[in-house]
Amino acid sequence: MRYFEDIAVGDRFTGGPLTVEAAEIVAYAEKFDPQPFHLDAEAAKDTLFRGLAASGWHTAGMTMRMIVGSNAELAGGYVGMGVDQIGWPRPTRPGDVLRIEMEVLEARRSVKRPHQGVLRVKTTTFNQNDEVVQTMIANLLAPGRPT
Amino acid sequence: MRYFEDIAVGDRFTGGPLTVEAAEIVAYAEKFDPQPFHLDAEAAKDTLFRGLAASGWHTAGMTMRMIVGSNAELAGGYVGMGVDQIGWPRPTRPGDVLRIEMEVLEARRSVKRPHQGVLRVKTTTFNQNDEVVQTMIANLLAPGRPT
Repeated sequence: MRYFEDIAVGDRFTGGPLTVEAAEIVAYAEKFDPQPFHLDAEAAKDTLFRGLAASGWHTAGMTMRMIVGSNAELAGGYVGMGVDQIGWPRPTRPGDVLRIEMEVLEARRSVKRPHQGVLRVKTTTFNQNDEVVQTMIANLLAPGRPT
Repeated sequence: MRYFEDIAVGDRFTGGPLTVEAAEIVAYAEKFDPQPFHLDAEAAKDTLFRGLAASGWHTAGMTMRMIVGSNAELAGGYVGMGVDQIGWPRPTRPGDVLRIEMEVLEARRSVKRPHQGVLRVKTTTFNQNDEVVQTMIANLLAPGRPT
């Protein structure tokens, strides 16, 4: 378990793997992003995705799942203060096997709450071909070690 | 149905409402964000959320659902090129009734693909008390009108 004091800029962590099932892509889309390219492989062929693709928000959710299971093991869990950037340079496809790499870009102690800090973390999500399917920079709350 | 040419900076659209069920908060968390404050109302009391709260990624997914159902009615659907910012100024809670307001911040025609454009859109998600639960700025692909 890592507290704010245990983390340094440049620290790297990893998470995954997570296999993407076609049925999960469709189930997510039905609930949160019901558009043809996320719902139906046949209909998706005639769209710019040229085949079934996961909603970017589904890829973000799967990335969060891998962050929670990662070897960063942050004390207090993973509480996002906000996100500075997300990009989806290529679609997540049925059968993809995803993994993440996390890198601590900044670590600053809170001025108002000096017993905690904020970590600016870049999380990159890769498929089984080491192609990037998502980039993200997020700010995570990191509790300080109890005194 | 609106093409790129039909949209101007300053245009506003709305979506929702969407009611947040406790069971949905837990179901989302079990799949994508299994942390105590999203999984269990009792365990959540002793966390900084002081009660069950939806994962921020669940709020983002519900926001996407309301964008797809909004009165923006973009031709070609809602394809995100990327997100410039997401913030969660307060938690989404069981029983909340969410709605969104969208505002077009920028509209620029693609240089490489002049038959389409990119819209920079601010989407704010409110609860039933008009309190902001999510802010987001995203870039959406907008096809031009067929000639």
